[in-house]
Amino acid sequence: MGPINLFDYERLAQPRIEPAAWDYYRSGSDDEVTLRANRAAFERIQLRPRVLVDVNRCDMRTTVLGTPVSMPILIAPTAFHGLAHPEGECATARGAGRAETLMVASTSSTRSLEEIAQAARGPLWFQLYIHDRRSTEELVERAADAGYRALVVTVDSPRWGYKEAAIRSGFRLPPHLKKGNFAGGDPADVDATLTWESLDWLRARTHLPIVLKGVLTGEDAALAMEHGVGGIVVSNHGGRQLDGVAASIEALPEVVAAVRGRCEVYVDSGIRRGTDVLKALALGARAVLVGRPSLWGLAVDGADGVTAVLALLRNELERAMALAGRPTIASIDHSLVQRV
Amino acid sequence: MGPINLFDYERLAQPRIEPAAWDYYRSGSDDEVTLRANRAAFERIQLRPRVLVDVNRCDMRTTVLGTPVSMPILIAPTAFHGLAHPEGECATARGAGRAETLMVASTSSTRSLEEIAQAARGPLWFQLYIHDRRSTEELVERAADAGYRALVVTVDSPRWGYKEAAIRSGFRLPPHLKKGNFAGGDPADVDATLTWESLDWLRARTHLPIVLKGVLTGEDAALAMEHGVGGIVVSNHGGRQLDGVAASIEALPEVVAAVRGRCEVYVDSGIRRGTDVLKALALGARAVLVGRPSLWGLAVDGADGVTAVLALLRNELERAMALAGRPTIASIDHSLVQRV
Amino acid sequence: MGPINLFDYERLAQPRIEPAAWDYYRSGSDDEVTLRANRAAFERIQLRPRVLVDVNRCDMRTTVLGTPVSMPILIAPTAFHGLAHPEGECATARGAGRAETLMVASTSSTRSLEEIAQAARGPLWFQLYIHDRRSTEELVERAADAGYRALVVTVDSPRWGYKEAAIRSGFRLPPHLKKGNFAGGDPADVDATLTWESLDWLRARTHLPIVLKGVLTGEDAALAMEHGVGGIVVSNHGGRQLDGVAASIEALPEVVAAVRGRCEVYVDSGIRRGTDVLKALALGARAVLVGRPSLWGLAVDGADGVTAVLALLRNELERAMALAGRPTIASIDHSLVQRV
Amino acid sequence: MGPINLFDYERLAQPRIEPAAWDYYRSGSDDEVTLRANRAAFERIQLRPRVLVDVNRCDMRTTVLGTPVSMPILIAPTAFHGLAHPEGECATARGAGRAETLMVASTSSTRSLEEIAQAARGPLWFQLYIHDRRSTEELVERAADAGYRALVVTVDSPRWGYKEAAIRSGFRLPPHLKKGNFAGGDPADVDATLTWESLDWLRARTHLPIVLKGVLTGEDAALAMEHGVGGIVVSNHGGRQLDGVAASIEALPEVVAAVRGRCEVYVDSGIRRGTDVLKALALGARAVLVGRPSLWGLAVDGADGVTAVLALLRNELERAMALAGRPTIASIDHSLVQRV
Repeated sequence: MGPINLFDYERLAQPRIEPAAWDYYRSGSDDEVTLRANRAAFERIQLRPRVLVDVNRCDMRTTVLGTPVSMPILIAPTAFHGLAHPEGECATARGAGRAETLMVASTSSTRSLEEIAQAARGPLWFQLYIHDRRSTEELVERAADAGYRALVVTVDSPRWGYKEAAIRSGFRLPPHLKKGNFAGGDPADVDATLTWESLDWLRARTHLPIVLKGVLTGEDAALAMEHGVGGIVVSNHGGRQLDGVAASIEALPEVVAAVRGRCEVYVDSGIRRGTDVLKALALGARAVLVGRPSLWGLAVDGADGVTAVLALLRNELERAMALAGRPTIASIDHSLVQRV
Repeated sequence: MGPINLFDYERLAQPRIEPAAWDYYRSGSDDEVTLRANRAAFERIQLRPRVLVDVNRCDMRTTVLGTPVSMPILIAPTAFHGLAHPEGECATARGAGRAETLMVASTSSTRSLEEIAQAARGPLWFQLYIHDRRSTEELVERAADAGYRALVVTVDSPRWGYKEAAIRSGFRLPPHLKKGNFAGGDPADVDATLTWESLDWLRARTHLPIVLKGVLTGEDAALAMEHGVGGIVVSNHGGRQLDGVAASIEALPEVVAAVRGRCEVYVDSGIRRGTDVLKALALGARAVLVGRPSLWGLAVDGADGVTAVLALLRNELERAMALAGRPTIASIDHSLVQRV
Repeated sequence: MGPINLFDYERLAQPRIEPAAWDYYRSGSDDEVTLRANRAAFERIQLRPRVLVDVNRCDMRTTVLGTPVSMPILIAPTAFHGLAHPEGECATARGAGRAETLMVASTSSTRSLEEIAQAARGPLWFQLYIHDRRSTEELVERAADAGYRALVVTVDSPRWGYKEAAIRSGFRLPPHLKKGNFAGGDPADVDATLTWESLDWLRARTHLPIVLKGVLTGEDAALAMEHGVGGIVVSNHGGRQLDGVAASIEALPEVVAAVRGRCEVYVDSGIRRGTDVLKALALGARAVLVGRPSLWGLAVDGADGVTAVLALLRNELERAMALAGRPTIASIDHSLVQRV
Repeated sequence: MGPINLFDYERLAQPRIEPAAWDYYRSGSDDEVTLRANRAAFERIQLRPRVLVDVNRCDMRTTVLGTPVSMPILIAPTAFHGLAHPEGECATARGAGRAETLMVASTSSTRSLEEIAQAARGPLWFQLYIHDRRSTEELVERAADAGYRALVVTVDSPRWGYKEAAIRSGFRLPPHLKKGNFAGGDPADVDATLTWESLDWLRARTHLPIVLKGVLTGEDAALAMEHGVGGIVVSNHGGRQLDGVAASIEALPEVVAAVRGRCEVYVDSGIRRGTDVLKALALGARAVLVGRPSLWGLAVDGADGVTAVLALLRNELERAMALAGRPTIASIDHSLVQRV
């Protein structure tokens, strides 16, 4: 029997990926407290389903920053897809496009952003680690030229989280994969001096909307509003940066409250089930992003695997919307959830 | 030594049922979070026993929609009893009758509702999945003709929950059991367009009282009052529909509060002990329904097994009422319980 | 190395007791939820120690109903000590006397109350199950004549809790031990018609103070005050009666609050550590009673084992009082504890 | 691969230490409830990281009682370093000095305080158990003469906690290690008559500032202010004294609140990660003390091991400060944490 949920894809993917690379993908930082919290938190959010609603057709189409997508499920930026499949990010982009959703391509890709854009059939955003300003300007220009529609600036990584499992495995990017945007690996020189002013500098240099990824507090969400961002990804980086922070889904409400509808809010980290997506939407997210599961699909079956993972999740969301009596995105509101 | 509690019946039943059918009976949907919650929730409700009350005779007789039953424990509708015993639902009905309680026969039975009615010695209700309107009208008429006293309309199943264990086992209803009300299996065509107006339509076509099964919120309970239902079964379908909803017993109080005594409220999902029944009554249920345990009894010893399971539960309830100092149904009130 | 805590005595005792008798002693009723809760509850109560208090001498002497005892730790009534040691309750009484504390002898003893009184070197109370009135009057008179100083009326047992482990083991009292107060076993005919009026009837027939054992609610504690009892044992019968009630230590505060100092309040069920005793005193208990641990000591070394168990617990309490900065009973107040 | 976190040092240290000595180091008292709580409590405190703060340089330098240290991580006093390494406390002192931080030397050392002072390259405090007054006066004078800058008076040990694992292992200090400040072992004669007046007596006899170690309540912190102490170590003695008290980190807030900035507050017990240090600072600690981990480093590699352990913890704290957006000690405030 083929895979019937995302965890099946995880099990199928593991033997297809080098052990050290697997550890790099799987692991969280330090004691992995936050990694575990990302899953456990969903169990503490209960659904309150309504009955006798016509759910014959559940419509989950939405837009993100004005771009239509077939569902509120996007591909999160993750590094080094070449570890999972020879076609790397190009295959992921094709898989996402077939599912009629958006992919956020990572700065740390094993294919150049232009190659990815060329392979893609759906909309793309570009995830940006800001290193030195010159290379950043260049990258931003390339992204705009290649048709990326937004910049997702990751702000939770002035240092790299200490992923101990990957360190013990001695993970290093194989030389033949050092061929992405910098022809380099995990950049060692991410700029730790970044401030809100850096963001203003960036905004002045691009017409692309800016999405901040890695915000976990209402205070920073409020500052983001002052600095004119177009969107926020509530994210703890899949439990890979500061260990001991809340599950992303638990930080979502305070960000949503601080934003007060002034920009779109998304969430990633730990989304594995259609009901997880439903809970995120009920708590105010416009869409969710899935990271590791897209890599699992990629490892198992390339672009088709990515599409299949997205299709599974979509089917689960469809069923969850129907069983919850919420057949449209608009009908999914806070009354659908309660904290245990 | 014979079985001394319901869990013993579970252990005895398993080897008597085909593995795939067992998985179908046992499993919940998705990650089975709600399936587990159904049991765990009872442990978080504590009993506050009173002492020095004359409990020499504990009287647990009650009525449901005016029908006298010997105890506030009914047989919940479950599908395909033929998987557990060759006599199927007919044996279950006989077993329930001997225990002087009521059985809710399922639309998805392996015997026709008329056969069940003929075999029965006690009162029956008919559980209804509404498919197309013509077949529904026909079914309702047949149920009334056969002497069923109420219609239990299941409203939590516009899609089938994804019972992954059963899917992995490849469960399918064996052809020789496709001989119930439709001579069909799990109907694939349940009507997902049902609304409160559909319910009004049904009410206009039958003199039988209507009980809604699958309500988990106060909002829907209030709507049910507007639409004139006679009873509500607070139910998450034994953890088999939307995964992530509250345990039925935890949703019971908000439904009871919304109903404000205007109709009878019952509860199912996870009842395994006399103290579970006692807690349900204390929280406002008029009666509980047991599903899987009746199948265990059926598998172990046919009609006698069903009667034996009900007798065990009855004895446990009798003892619990005595030890709690609540010798009558009327004396079981909210002061008997507290949440941990 | 010899036993250094009560759990060591438990391990040493098990091989010295017939398996079925062990199950009878060890088990709780039904799913043993309350049995486990009795221990777990203590972990949720934290101590708040004070420092720089002179604790050179810790004085734990107290009185119970006016009778001086060397420590606030009494022997709880438990049935059938002959299962643990040939000298049965006589050895227990000697062991308690050497520890200069009080024993509550059970109606269900394997030695007659007169034999126990004769063997005893310390004060005794008599635990009473009320069966028919005639035998009760006789028993009460015998207890008074033999020098018992109070009657501990157990009020939580109008039925026997269903101790499934013991039932599965087929536990029955061996015939040679049917030689206590009734020359009978577990009395099958406990009076389930008892009410507060029965208590008034008893009070009118004895000059002995009456202690109610098995109260778990403030409501019943208030009624007990109206009916002139001299003491209350907050008890869930070691988890052996109604399963699903709160840990005794968690029910203690509401009883203490209802009593408002009008009678003494004791607690049993789950006391295994000196810090448990300290927590009980801080929550308002005048003394605690230990049941199973005294049987463990008895099984391991007869009267000496009982004394040794009490000495261990006393030493632990002494150390706990010192480390908590509470060198006297009077200094142990509610500020010493907090709920987690 | 060498050790990458403190738990690695624990695993490496165990085979290098005699089993009984290991049990002595590792164990907590009684049921080790508090020992476990010390670690578990950190998981219940979540970090709220801020983003887009310039964290290029994180400055963790601070002072304790006016003495500059390179980081807010000190060496806690622990007994008998000779069990871990032949050079004992002298090696620990050298290791701490190389890390440019302060060591608190224990009364119960296997080297004399003068030897330790001579070996040390960094600042020292002296931990004091008060026995009889004459020997105490002598010890205090020696400490002052040797250059110790403060007296850390342990106030939680009027009795020794019952470390059952060590008792079962038969731990005794080997005779060749009885050569520290008293040429004796664990002093059996700690003065249990100590009161706040004893503290006044001590203050009158030394110019050294006094730090109280072992305070867990706001009440005692307030008294400490009245008695002029210079600092408080919130400590449950690594779970080795009264079992059942709160984790030190959970008691910290009430002490900080009672002190209201009038003295410095430190915390020990269970610190194993840089994020633990960060949480402690956020809750109001000026510095933390680490005990067992320094012994692990000592056992693995003598002074170098101690330095390495401190360097690991320092690196983790540096990374945590950066990822939390708190590049200075002053920026670490209560808004950084929330209780789960």
